[in-house]
Amino acid sequence: MVNLNVSVPSFVNLEALLTAIEVAATIAFAMSGLIEAVRRRMDIIGVFSVTFVSAFGGGTLRDVLLDRRPLFWVENPEYVWLVLVLTLVTPMLLRTRQHRLTNKLMELADALGLGLFAISGTSVALISGMPEIVAVIMGAITAAFGGVARDVLCNEIPKVFHDHRPYTLCALIGNTLFLCLHALGATPELSAGIGIATVTGLRLLSLAYHWRIPAWPPQK
Amino acid sequence: MVNLNVSVPSFVNLEALLTAIEVAATIAFAMSGLIEAVRRRMDIIGVFSVTFVSAFGGGTLRDVLLDRRPLFWVENPEYVWLVLVLTLVTPMLLRTRQHRLTNKLMELADALGLGLFAISGTSVALISGMPEIVAVIMGAITAAFGGVARDVLCNEIPKVFHDHRPYTLCALIGNTLFLCLHALGATPELSAGIGIATVTGLRLLSLAYHWRIPAWPPQK
Amino acid sequence: MVNLNVSVPSFVNLEALLTAIEVAATIAFAMSGLIEAVRRRMDIIGVFSVTFVSAFGGGTLRDVLLDRRPLFWVENPEYVWLVLVLTLVTPMLLRTRQHRLTNKLMELADALGLGLFAISGTSVALISGMPEIVAVIMGAITAAFGGVARDVLCNEIPKVFHDHRPYTLCALIGNTLFLCLHALGATPELSAGIGIATVTGLRLLSLAYHWRIPAWPPQK
Repeated sequence: MVNLNVSVPSFVNLEALLTAIEVAATIAFAMSGLIEAVRRRMDIIGVFSVTFVSAFGGGTLRDVLLDRRPLFWVENPEYVWLVLVLTLVTPMLLRTRQHRLTNKLMELADALGLGLFAISGTSVALISGMPEIVAVIMGAITAAFGGVARDVLCNEIPKVFHDHRPYTLCALIGNTLFLCLHALGATPELSAGIGIATVTGLRLLSLAYHWRIPAWPPQK
Repeated sequence: MVNLNVSVPSFVNLEALLTAIEVAATIAFAMSGLIEAVRRRMDIIGVFSVTFVSAFGGGTLRDVLLDRRPLFWVENPEYVWLVLVLTLVTPMLLRTRQHRLTNKLMELADALGLGLFAISGTSVALISGMPEIVAVIMGAITAAFGGVARDVLCNEIPKVFHDHRPYTLCALIGNTLFLCLHALGATPELSAGIGIATVTGLRLLSLAYHWRIPAWPPQK
Repeated sequence: MVNLNVSVPSFVNLEALLTAIEVAATIAFAMSGLIEAVRRRMDIIGVFSVTFVSAFGGGTLRDVLLDRRPLFWVENPEYVWLVLVLTLVTPMLLRTRQHRLTNKLMELADALGLGLFAISGTSVALISGMPEIVAVIMGAITAAFGGVARDVLCNEIPKVFHDHRPYTLCALIGNTLFLCLHALGATPELSAGIGIATVTGLRLLSLAYHWRIPAWPPQK
């Protein structure tokens, strides 16, 4: 379970909700890698490796940079099994057809994961005593580095650097808001909740309205 | 020396044998990088760097993920000297001719290294208290990540992901067998020996009989 | 501040000088990444990420390999702000024109940074108890890995491996000289000073006289 340092009120099963988001998000992150690997006609080792790195790369880099152990997937080996099952089962399903509904569901799960991992990464860095700007960046690394590593392994310039769609930017905005609320004395539940909602909401809005961020610097 | 946690019977010089395999395997891993770097007309810095990463990348990533220090090549700097000498001397030899015999010897040394590093990596992870599935993966990372990093530095999709020849798969099978024997109460010597023999044997068989693993999912 | 383990004589403001070099060098390293990212029409996230990795990649890899924390940019978050400001401001300036003078100044700052980071990296590794050859390599990693990571993220073979201009080689020569002087009993100030001057001097000479290092092995 991602540690959001949130004390759970007894009347809301917040922990179960966060775990459900975490599982859905890990599946979404993993699938983004699996689809790229299958597209490149990799063998099962390649598909598993790229899927694995897409799912766990961000949290792993954060933990290595912060020197935290055990790693997320070492502490929760059931997530490794999940990635293994995804690798074995889903490529068969991909062949049949790709539902529009599936795509929408994946985008939703990915946006939820972006929010959850961005805020949890920021929170983890903050608890480790990192300066604010470092915590914001660690949150973004947690959410986005899996995709960067996926694209490097697939021999491409990372999409989050140049597809000109807001992704990491949503995370940075939400992380900053989370830190501000935290500094203003909001409870962890409130600031984390607003932070996640902001990241996920911005991402979903950007998809719905086809927002673009220009090349930097903007052309006139 | 790779620590296989094996108590050495006095009547067999097992340690010397393992060291000999380790040296041969490091040379084979290093040469795989050296050949790629020379092919790309890199300068001596590039050749040394790619050779170095091919030789030590796997063990280094494993140790960083497990937070073990000192790193293998820090504890045994004579291996760094070995890579330096290889960089200085062998490119001259490569130019003259490439013996068929040399290729066969390199394949043998690489297969032995695959076995040794896969099982030693699994063993190291197990001793560090990792869950079984993590230990199997750490063993595979130890044996295969050097080649992945080599290909990333040479700007290619990693060959072990898409050349469709069994390599990491041999390691995963042998690592799993090693863990099963360990769980069944076999001595470390026996389970490690059978594990290494399985990985190396599978790899040599796959080369001899030109085994292929299909793209995943298999096409009908 | 880079720790050169140098006791500062009261009559020379060495610390201020080293800090000035460090800031100039970080800007030069960062700009090398910024220029590559802007050239590839990345968005602001991509430009910031590549700039960040170019500036801090080398020191970060060294610290991860040596297991030192906090990382340089975590301990000095003002450098992260510096990279952020560079990302926001300089691309606008780049568009107007590229002064010949600016290029020369950048080359000078980069050469100074090469010297400072190479020797400081070697010094840090030595203090951590690394063997000599490992310390020399750690110094080179500190100075050169940022550029390697930059090129990997931009989907190119690292320039320092195959542009055939002396860069890492200058660092290796200066690091070795620094170690020799240290072993001969020279004061830290003297050996560090001569080491930095050697690296920076060799780099500037190689630029002025268009020195080349051949592909390895050299063609006849």
